Amino acid sequence: MSGNTSGNSLPLETTIKEYRPGLEGVIACRSSISYVDGQEGLLEYRGINIRELAEHSTFEETAYLLLYNHLPSEREFSQFKMLMARLRILPHLIRDAIEEFPVGMHPMLALQSAISLLQADDYYADDISSPQHNLRRAISLMAKLPTLITTFERYRSSEEPLPPSSKYSHAENFLFMLTGEPPHSLAAKVFDRFLILHAEHSMNASTFVARAIASSNASIYSSISGAVGSLSGILHGGANERVLRMLYSIGHPDNVEEFIEEQLATKNRIMGFGHRVYKVKDPRAHILEEYIPDLVDQLGGEEVKTLYQTARRFEEVAAQKMASRNIHPNVDFYSGIVLEALGIPVDLFTAIFSMARVSGWCAHWLEQIDTNRLFRPSQDYIGDHQRAYVPIENR
Amino acid sequence: MSGNTSGNSLPLETTIKEYRPGLEGVIACRSSISYVDGQEGLLEYRGINIRELAEHSTFEETAYLLLYNHLPSEREFSQFKMLMARLRILPHLIRDAIEEFPVGMHPMLALQSAISLLQADDYYADDISSPQHNLRRAISLMAKLPTLITTFERYRSSEEPLPPSSKYSHAENFLFMLTGEPPHSLAAKVFDRFLILHAEHSMNASTFVARAIASSNASIYSSISGAVGSLSGILHGGANERVLRMLYSIGHPDNVEEFIEEQLATKNRIMGFGHRVYKVKDPRAHILEEYIPDLVDQLGGEEVKTLYQTARRFEEVAAQKMASRNIHPNVDFYSGIVLEALGIPVDLFTAIFSMARVSGWCAHWLEQIDTNRLFRPSQDYIGDHQRAYVPIENR
Repeated sequence: MSGNTSGNSLPLETTIKEYRPGLEGVIACRSSISYVDGQEGLLEYRGINIRELAEHSTFEETAYLLLYNHLPSEREFSQFKMLMARLRILPHLIRDAIEEFPVGMHPMLALQSAISLLQADDYYADDISSPQHNLRRAISLMAKLPTLITTFERYRSSEEPLPPSSKYSHAENFLFMLTGEPPHSLAAKVFDRFLILHAEHSMNASTFVARAIASSNASIYSSISGAVGSLSGILHGGANERVLRMLYSIGHPDNVEEFIEEQLATKNRIMGFGHRVYKVKDPRAHILEEYIPDLVDQLGGEEVKTLYQTARRFEEVAAQKMASRNIHPNVDFYSGIVLEALGIPVDLFTAIFSMARVSGWCAHWLEQIDTNRLFRPSQDYIGDHQRAYVPIENR
Repeated sequence: MSGNTSGNSLPLETTIKEYRPGLEGVIACRSSISYVDGQEGLLEYRGINIRELAEHSTFEETAYLLLYNHLPSEREFSQFKMLMARLRILPHLIRDAIEEFPVGMHPMLALQSAISLLQADDYYADDISSPQHNLRRAISLMAKLPTLITTFERYRSSEEPLPPSSKYSHAENFLFMLTGEPPHSLAAKVFDRFLILHAEHSMNASTFVARAIASSNASIYSSISGAVGSLSGILHGGANERVLRMLYSIGHPDNVEEFIEEQLATKNRIMGFGHRVYKVKDPRAHILEEYIPDLVDQLGGEEVKTLYQTARRFEEVAAQKMASRNIHPNVDFYSGIVLEALGIPVDLFTAIFSMARVSGWCAHWLEQIDTNRLFRPSQDYIGDHQRAYVPIENR
C-alpha cells in the first residue's frame, strides 16, 4: 500500500532462477517506439524504416514522430518548431551555474550535471500527472541539449556562449552555437542525418537506465541525466571516439593490414566492428557511409582525407580477415569520421550522441510513466550468513 | 568485438518470453553485499545482522564492512577514519559551482548534479582498472555527500558553508555542518543508527540503477549521480517525507481513526505501511522505533510530541484495521519522525537517505565493475511495422 509495495506482487517462489548476466534476452518492457531486427538489418522508428526518415525527414520531424507516434501535419509541425525555437533558450540561472563548472571536467559529466539543474526551471517537476506538461518537458529537454553542450564548450574555451537563432534548424543551431559561423549547408544536412540515425535504438543500456529511473516516478531531468551517465561509459556511447583514436593511431592506409593482424593475433578488440544485436551490417552504418565521401571531399582537410582512406582500407581488410566470423562495421565506425569532418572536438562526440538520443529517451520516459511499475529485480545472493559482530579489540 | 558486442551472446530464440513488469523475480546480478529475508524479517550486511550493527557499530565501520567485506582492525579503522576526514573537504571549484546552483531547485536534483561535478576532481575517472583507486573513489564519495548536501543547504539559506571538523564522526559532522552547533550526543547517536539502518538493502531500484549505469563502465560519479536520481522518485526514497506530511495533515491522535477509515474506504494508499519485500514488520522499523521515545522526549518540541503520538495511534489503529491483510509499518513510517525530531528540513530527508545509501551503492558499483556485463535487456515490441513515410503535404 505504500510507495514500494504492491497488492499483486508475486510470491518469492516464482523467481526466475536462471541468471542472465546483463539481463540478456530478458524482456524489461513493452514498447512501441522502435524495432530492431538484427538478422535482417532493419531499424524502424514507430514503424517507419529509418532509411526513409534519413532520406526525407529532419531531426525535428523524427523527434516529433518518436514522441507523438505520428508524423506531424504542416500546422502541427510549424507549432512544434516554434516551440523548440523558444525552448532552446537557456534560463540565465542555468547558464550562470554552467559558467562555474570546472573547465577540466569531461563534457559528458558536465552535461549529466547540467540536465539535473534544469529542474530548477520546472518547480513542479515531480508532478507527472499531466501528459501535456510531460510532453512539453520532453520537448524542452530535446531543445535545450545543444544549448547546454555548446554553453559548456564555449565557457571552457573562454568564449561567451551564443544564443540560439530562430532562423536555424536544430542541427544548424548546434553548429552555429558551437562556432558562431553560419553553418555550411552540406555540414548541416549530414549532421541532421546523423541526429536522425542516432535518435533511438530500443532497449540499449542508456534507454534502459532512463526507464529504470523513471520507474520510481523520478522527474524527467533525473531520468535523462542518468541516461547521459550511462551513455558516457566506454562500453556504450564512447565507441565512436575510440574508433577515431584507433584510426588516427594507425595513421595511414598502408598500416592497416599489419594493425588488424596484430589485433586478431592478440585477440584484442577491434573498435567499431560487430554489434550485440546486428548479425548483418548495421543499417545506420549503411546509410551514414553514403554521405561521407561528399562530406570529406567538400569539408575535410588533408588529415581527414587520410583518416577516411584509412577507414576504407580498414573495412576492406577486415572484410577479408573476419568474413567467416560474420562481424561487420557498426554505426560507430563511421560516425566518428563524420563528426571529425564536421570539425567537432573529439571529447564532445558522446555528448552529441546524447543530443540525438534524448528524443528516444524522452519517448521511453513518457511510455514508462504511462504504464509504470517500479523496477525492483532480484539478486542471486552468494555471500555469507549469520556472521558474528566481533568487537574491534578482538579482531 | 567492439564495446557493445560479445562473442558469447545468446541466440535471440532464448529470450525469456514471459514479461515481468518491473523485472519482479528476475535475477539481475550475483551479489554478496546484503541479504533480505522478507518472510523472516531479516536483513544482513555482509552476513552480519543489522541489529548487531545498529547496537555495536558506527556508520563508518558499517561502511567499511560493506566496502571491504570484513570488519576493520583498530589500525585499519583509524586509517579509514583519517582518510574519510580528509576526503570530507570539498575542492573549491566544486564549492564555487554549487554556490551558483539555483536556490529554488530540489535538494535531490542539486545533489544529483553536484555528484557528477565531482568528476572534475578525478580526471582519470574513466580508468577503472585499479581496485585501489576505485576503493578510494568510493570512500571519497561517501565522505563528501554530507558536505555536498550541507553546502547546498547553507548557500540556499544565504549562509556560508561550514568546513567539516576532524574531531567529529560522520553523523556528527553532518549535524555540525548543517547548523554550526556542536551536535547533541543523543541526536548524533540516533542519526548514526539511522545511517547504519539505511546503508544498504540489496536490489532496490536505485541500487539497480547504480549497477546498470556502472555496466557501461561509466564512472562512479555518473553511476551514483544516477542512483540519486532514482532515489528522488516518490515511489522510492520520497516515502518518509510523505509519511511526515500525512501525519501532520492528520494533526492529532484523535483524528487518526477517521483518516484511516476514509483511506481504506476510498482504497487510497496509506504511506509508510507495507513493503514489496517484507511480509512481516520491517526489521529496520523495529530497531528505529526503539530510539524514538527518548529522542522525542529530549529533543522534540510540542509539535514533534503530537506528531509522535499521532504516529503511535496510527500504528495501533492500522494494526486493528489491516491485521488480516498482513501489512506492517515499514522503516519510512519511523524515519521521518526521527529526522523531524533532529530538526532537519523536510525537503532534505531523501538527500539524507542518499548519505546513508551511498555506502551500499558504492559497494555495488565495485562489485558490478568486477564482474561486469553490459545491461542490455530485450523489449516486447507492440508497435506497428512497415508504416510508409507520407510527405507532409499529404498528411
